[in-house]
Amino acid sequence: MSKSPEKARLYVEDDLAHGLSISPSKDQMHYLMTVMRGEAGDHVLLFNGRDGEWRAAINPTGKKTCVLAVEAITRPQSASPDAWLLFAPVKKARLDFIAQKASEMGASRIWPVQTDYCQVSRVNDNRLAANAIEAAEQTERLDIAHIMDFTPLSMALDALDAEDDGRLLIWCDEDSAGMPALNAIDAMKAHPKPQKVAILIGPEGGFSETERLRLSALQNCLKVSLGPRILRADTAVIAALACYQSVWGDWPS
Amino acid sequence: MSKSPEKARLYVEDDLAHGLSISPSKDQMHYLMTVMRGEAGDHVLLFNGRDGEWRAAINPTGKKTCVLAVEAITRPQSASPDAWLLFAPVKKARLDFIAQKASEMGASRIWPVQTDYCQVSRVNDNRLAANAIEAAEQTERLDIAHIMDFTPLSMALDALDAEDDGRLLIWCDEDSAGMPALNAIDAMKAHPKPQKVAILIGPEGGFSETERLRLSALQNCLKVSLGPRILRADTAVIAALACYQSVWGDWPS
Repeated sequence: MSKSPEKARLYVEDDLAHGLSISPSKDQMHYLMTVMRGEAGDHVLLFNGRDGEWRAAINPTGKKTCVLAVEAITRPQSASPDAWLLFAPVKKARLDFIAQKASEMGASRIWPVQTDYCQVSRVNDNRLAANAIEAAEQTERLDIAHIMDFTPLSMALDALDAEDDGRLLIWCDEDSAGMPALNAIDAMKAHPKPQKVAILIGPEGGFSETERLRLSALQNCLKVSLGPRILRADTAVIAALACYQSVWGDWPS
Repeated sequence: MSKSPEKARLYVEDDLAHGLSISPSKDQMHYLMTVMRGEAGDHVLLFNGRDGEWRAAINPTGKKTCVLAVEAITRPQSASPDAWLLFAPVKKARLDFIAQKASEMGASRIWPVQTDYCQVSRVNDNRLAANAIEAAEQTERLDIAHIMDFTPLSMALDALDAEDDGRLLIWCDEDSAGMPALNAIDAMKAHPKPQKVAILIGPEGGFSETERLRLSALQNCLKVSLGPRILRADTAVIAALACYQSVWGDWPS
């Protein structure tokens, strides 16, 4: 692909409307002017998660600096389906990867939860957010997944209970591998369509007995299986979101 | 997790049967004796893609060397569904990743194909194989995905044509995003179940017009969509295989 900022699609925090002038961040400026060699009159696409997607013209203000002049809306705002991803975080590179892939697959909220057999004890929210934003830029979604603080699973489940808004917990249970009724697609197809879901992916060591008891006792919970092979957490995230988006999410049907 | 070779699951090329003695590879020896600190009487699991999975005992032959004494079968041989993955390779780390993930998701054959907008011109088969084997060890599958040489797409399609054995090509077409009938799950559910499939994932730049014409003219081809977001090739591989394994593959139903 030739170098051209014309294919750039950048997330900004500013409001977007015709005639506004946007200052890109330092990294964005470097990307547009140095990496992509942007010139006066080149266009980029901007989105902020609220105002849709806009075309903006590069206005150089120096050799390597510019502002972006917002010209016209290219797509109206849309929201991803209300699907949260709860997952037990794994180590660094694959954690970045989970944030990217969850964003790419259209999760509306990315929520790292601490389980009994979780491998990590701290999570860098800013890093998760940066990964989710970068993936949103590439995948052409118009909203940004909301990143939650690292929370003990029991507290996250308490919060779900307390909301009492009918959000269905989809529990991807690796111990259900052999059970036909739990094939993720079949199980979703057989269940009334929920308006909101939270998909729970466990740690690679599985859930503890205490956690399994708590999850099994939940009222609004659908246990599903992602097949007979042991999946790594990042693979399970993509597989689960693919099943969800196809059956209940925004894959047209 | 404490260090113990007991959880090790290793792929070997040797035949496996009661009473045989296996020499692990240099890397496997290092892993068992140095990383996992294996001792006499510790057990590991072995598989070769033909004879099922066997428990074997570590017999140290020196401080850092050992042979493995095959004792008893733990699982009979099984084969993954006959599902090939054809994909346009991407650059290094993500290519490794595709081989790992295709293996984890149970592809029976991994076939890099050169398309008009493909980003790479050479593929290291051995590296693909090493990644596929490592993932098979972790994911507990008993067979190994067969790695094919990097082949021009047109020749791969010729080979499919020539076989004439009813293998259905599942063409994941990013230009079909908006079409409800093409939702991957719906499209598969509406189609008679094939015995064999080849799943085709395009390059991130899409297929060329020539390629689209050829694909559109194929008799035994099902065009499917993986939703409205632009997916990276590695994500599309996992999403497509999840849909396939759930509907037609080996997720029980």
